[in-house]
Amino acid sequence: MTISIRPATKADVAQILTFIRALAEYEREPEAVMATEADLERDGFGPNPFYSCLIADVDGKPAGFAFYFFNYSTWLGRPGLYLEDLFVNVESRGLGVGKALLERVAAIAVEKGCPRLQWEVLDWNTPAVEFYRAMGAEFLDEWRNVRVTGEALRRLAGLKPASPEAGSAL
Amino acid sequence: MTISIRPATKADVAQILTFIRALAEYEREPEAVMATEADLERDGFGPNPFYSCLIADVDGKPAGFAFYFFNYSTWLGRPGLYLEDLFVNVESRGLGVGKALLERVAAIAVEKGCPRLQWEVLDWNTPAVEFYRAMGAEFLDEWRNVRVTGEALRRLAGLKPASPEAGSAL
Repeated sequence: MTISIRPATKADVAQILTFIRALAEYEREPEAVMATEADLERDGFGPNPFYSCLIADVDGKPAGFAFYFFNYSTWLGRPGLYLEDLFVNVESRGLGVGKALLERVAAIAVEKGCPRLQWEVLDWNTPAVEFYRAMGAEFLDEWRNVRVTGEALRRLAGLKPASPEAGSAL
Repeated sequence: MTISIRPATKADVAQILTFIRALAEYEREPEAVMATEADLERDGFGPNPFYSCLIADVDGKPAGFAFYFFNYSTWLGRPGLYLEDLFVNVESRGLGVGKALLERVAAIAVEKGCPRLQWEVLDWNTPAVEFYRAMGAEFLDEWRNVRVTGEALRRLAGLKPASPEAGSAL
């Protein structure tokens, strides 16, 4: 059995979307994926890509992916590497594919001069939490993630509601 | 009194660092800021900047800043706007400077096609938590932030420890 890790290309977009959907299902949000192949191609493979992606092949067949981009630490004055998604197909688990992906992502972080590799984990995902802890990861539990979306975002931006129906629900 | 919001330029780098340090002090981590003016200039004002920054002037004098970059939602297939830092000088608080900065950031998010504006707040910062809640923000408390840095990151990347001292501490 051979595990190999490679940067994704435009030709992998359908596969990336399949991995994104499978991960959303694992995260108990199967309906949450609105992304299309066209979105992923436009945003990942144009002149100024918003993200990068690695594919793990097991014996030449895609078995998992790591999806990342760069954030920035104002304290360190350096970009950090943010791992948005890490996923391995059910049938390829236990082979070291996730570890191989994570190691490659860490190597890219070091190579790009990023002093931090960061990601998120669901609090009920105990095996993942334990795995990360054993690896030397810290948990930044003092910080709460905040998000504004939809009508609240439009309102904050000083825009009118997108539709009368949405407006009346405010 | 006039509040005006403008994109930062290279000439603002010293001011940006002053704001970063003042915010770190507010966050009870005054020693945490390693960033230099050279770092901020290199990473924010080169050909492929890692971040963007807005300055709020009150009667022509810098009073606060918003420091942001783009992340990416694999579920939505769209970039999101991530607000790393938002800060207003003590003497300019209560004038609406923070709100004006946040509104401009939200307007940029909408303009850039970002369905989400996201940031973090310290769990003990109750006034901020309440302010964000009133604004329609959601708190993603099911997700824990995880980070690997320093020797743990080098180890994960398959590298030797940076120094014998660090190595012996493993």
